[in-house]
Amino acid sequence: MPGIWVMRIGHRPQRDKRVTTHVALTARAMGASGIFVDTPDPVLEENVRSVAERFGGSFRVKTGVGWKDALKDFDGVSVQLTMYGQKLDEGLPKIPQDRDIMIIVGAEKVPFEVYERADLNISVGNQPHSEIAALAVLLDRFTAGKNLYSERDGNMSVVPNERGKTVVERPS
Amino acid sequence: MPGIWVMRIGHRPQRDKRVTTHVALTARAMGASGIFVDTPDPVLEENVRSVAERFGGSFRVKTGVGWKDALKDFDGVSVQLTMYGQKLDEGLPKIPQDRDIMIIVGAEKVPFEVYERADLNISVGNQPHSEIAALAVLLDRFTAGKNLYSERDGNMSVVPNERGKTVVERPS
Repeated sequence: MPGIWVMRIGHRPQRDKRVTTHVALTARAMGASGIFVDTPDPVLEENVRSVAERFGGSFRVKTGVGWKDALKDFDGVSVQLTMYGQKLDEGLPKIPQDRDIMIIVGAEKVPFEVYERADLNISVGNQPHSEIAALAVLLDRFTAGKNLYSERDGNMSVVPNERGKTVVERPS
Repeated sequence: MPGIWVMRIGHRPQRDKRVTTHVALTARAMGASGIFVDTPDPVLEENVRSVAERFGGSFRVKTGVGWKDALKDFDGVSVQLTMYGQKLDEGLPKIPQDRDIMIIVGAEKVPFEVYERADLNISVGNQPHSEIAALAVLLDRFTAGKNLYSERDGNMSVVPNERGKTVVERPS
């Protein structure tokens, strides 16, 4: 099955720790295989891995990997999410379902080279908002939400509940 | 036309400034009318208003409004987004399109009272990820993405572009 990867550009460990964590956990929750982050950040790796270990699945996280390196041997289609990109409804059908994809999301400023190198530049709306939101909407539409409640065999899992909290914890 | 409002609970100005800003801008970009934030935060208000003034539209932001106050005179349907909630596909059809809605999103820990008081508790997946992502997916599905490229009459606007950046700036 083709994989979905996320490449996070411009990560500054102190300033972006929470936002990049949200990017990573969103990618995982919505079925991506893993994330690359350009700046080395062992704390971020540890935090994301800790969630992935408890809740299951095989999400990969690797920091200290620049976007050029991530794309160099990547045999798939790269998609930059940017408010300047083509409309979502026009770009989405151009993303193949049968190949690996690499979704590039930047922090504040992304080098223009990325716009040139990405196979597709797609916007989720043309307003300034959030790369987390943009990633979530793209993944939800691209996967038709099919991974939202998939079984992941973690020690912890949550059972949907209309009013309370149902958490199942299995001995590890 | 009914309005979509967002209520942000548990905001800590220093720690959450970027995440709550993302929540607010996502709400605005996807067609919400405004956001309430429980903790007073004039800097956050200023930042969000600055975007709204430049890019147009009539998004409202008010901080220092607790969730009980926001809901007290609210004549509509309240929806808490939580990873413990009912499945999105089951909850979404229960949100009426012809009434105001208030979407409640918390920071790390939300009082159990909110689960009891909210008309609906809905999850966007049962994995831990991001309230920004959850809000984005809910709004995208609820509105069928119809606000993503709507005209907002701001001094600044972005024209979708497959490869570069096209920004139109009008004299104010």
